[in-house]
Amino acid sequence: MGQDEAEFESRVVVVGVGLIGGSIAAAIRSRHPGCEVVGLGRNSERLEAAQAAGLLTSYAMETAPELFTGRTLVVVCLPVHLIADAVQQIAAVASADTVITDAGSVKGMICDAVSADPVAAARFVPAHPIAGGEQGGFEFADGYLFDGRVCVIVDGFDPGNTQRVSSFWSALGCELKTLSAAEHDRRLALTSHLPHVMAAVTTQVVGSENLPLTGSGFRDTTRIAAGDAQLWRSILAGNRQQVLQALDCAAASLAEFRDRLADGDDDQVEQLLQEAAECRSRLHETA
Amino acid sequence: MGQDEAEFESRVVVVGVGLIGGSIAAAIRSRHPGCEVVGLGRNSERLEAAQAAGLLTSYAMETAPELFTGRTLVVVCLPVHLIADAVQQIAAVASADTVITDAGSVKGMICDAVSADPVAAARFVPAHPIAGGEQGGFEFADGYLFDGRVCVIVDGFDPGNTQRVSSFWSALGCELKTLSAAEHDRRLALTSHLPHVMAAVTTQVVGSENLPLTGSGFRDTTRIAAGDAQLWRSILAGNRQQVLQALDCAAASLAEFRDRLADGDDDQVEQLLQEAAECRSRLHETA
Repeated sequence: MGQDEAEFESRVVVVGVGLIGGSIAAAIRSRHPGCEVVGLGRNSERLEAAQAAGLLTSYAMETAPELFTGRTLVVVCLPVHLIADAVQQIAAVASADTVITDAGSVKGMICDAVSADPVAAARFVPAHPIAGGEQGGFEFADGYLFDGRVCVIVDGFDPGNTQRVSSFWSALGCELKTLSAAEHDRRLALTSHLPHVMAAVTTQVVGSENLPLTGSGFRDTTRIAAGDAQLWRSILAGNRQQVLQALDCAAASLAEFRDRLADGDDDQVEQLLQEAAECRSRLHETA
Repeated sequence: MGQDEAEFESRVVVVGVGLIGGSIAAAIRSRHPGCEVVGLGRNSERLEAAQAAGLLTSYAMETAPELFTGRTLVVVCLPVHLIADAVQQIAAVASADTVITDAGSVKGMICDAVSADPVAAARFVPAHPIAGGEQGGFEFADGYLFDGRVCVIVDGFDPGNTQRVSSFWSALGCELKTLSAAEHDRRLALTSHLPHVMAAVTTQVVGSENLPLTGSGFRDTTRIAAGDAQLWRSILAGNRQQVLQALDCAAASLAEFRDRLADGDDDQVEQLLQEAAECRSRLHETA
């Protein structure tokens, strides 16, 4: 870890205890057992179960001032369209020593909303750990989900808070990368949002009736299409313009490929496949 | 296995000892150790190494009559554009008790060529075990690659040979499915060839410079794009018209998705995602 245990936060509030929130809680509980981990959510049965599973030291269902006293780090792990509101509500009641980060996969929309509220902006440092899975719920929580994964830290926020939030994500195993919100959104539209749409489109075109004739290629290519449609709706809507640009690039690339194949220009088809294979082979396989 | 060991072939010639040929050899060697497994290829060093790895009992580099004496089953595991020629060359010198099958992922082109040659057609039963991997070479051979995977047997060929070839694939662990060559090609264009193109397009659009910001979604979605460009060129060219139709369906579906997102019709976006998620969740995960 390379982190001094003594430097880690003593109190973390996880807002939204699903796959990501639960995995953050699991990572803290296993690496920093002295840290208090408070779950904040809406469903007492789910929170009770997450505590029973050892992820939380306590939980709450209201954004009350007593949750955000002293030196508290808050990490908001809600669907992206709910993050800015949650940050503002928490900032309005939090101590001066509270810092708030998030794990949303869209950043511009959230930064814009929070930046319009000086109290919230003074407490907030947006982040995005690039890790996840297609199955939601804290039952799939994995304390090693963030190990070696990139966490984007959005620049332009309070330097002291940024340092503290960076240390937090780093202590969970993340490799940090600082980007503007706009650059994050432009690049994640390509690296994350586009693959999701491509997987959904491929699944839809193949159709249930052909599933018996699929192999490992279809299985891998479309795995993420099984993800939560509501969550992805809010991600795509929250990064609409950048996603549209990414989809336009993909449509143009697909049309180019189709035309080469239709023309019988198989050398060019092979060249396009070869370029993709070389690019893909540069990705270090992590799991 | 449900197969009587005594009924299995006593002699199998594997033409092309790469990932698929090597995996067939491995499956035979582990399940039917009494069966002779002869590798036929062009590169003596590679064949020697495959024999040293325990995959082959012997090997040869020429399509000589003495390889195809008595009761021999031949399985041609070459790139699809080379299969029909190999079948014809082997049939021309083979014993009356020799039966030939293949493992190509395109069937119409091969069936058309072989059917024009009565000698070859009388020996051949085309097949396609839907299994594979993006890494070629017998070093990645896996004797369990075919376990529980569908193997398509093309209908319309000699019933006795069809029975024998079906027993062969079944004994390797495959679940059999009989289809016409045309139906195979139409459906595999969707279930296998389309995902490959979509993975290549996604990889190309994302680009090397964005690889550090990719997560597990991109990793899975594009894994097959690392596959052998030459092999895939011959598959796509060998099933050109059906692949073009599949690409057109995908382009239409992508455009529909894009338009809904551009129009802010997020309910419809979610509906499309939800349909894909439901379809994908019907796929029984095998690994």
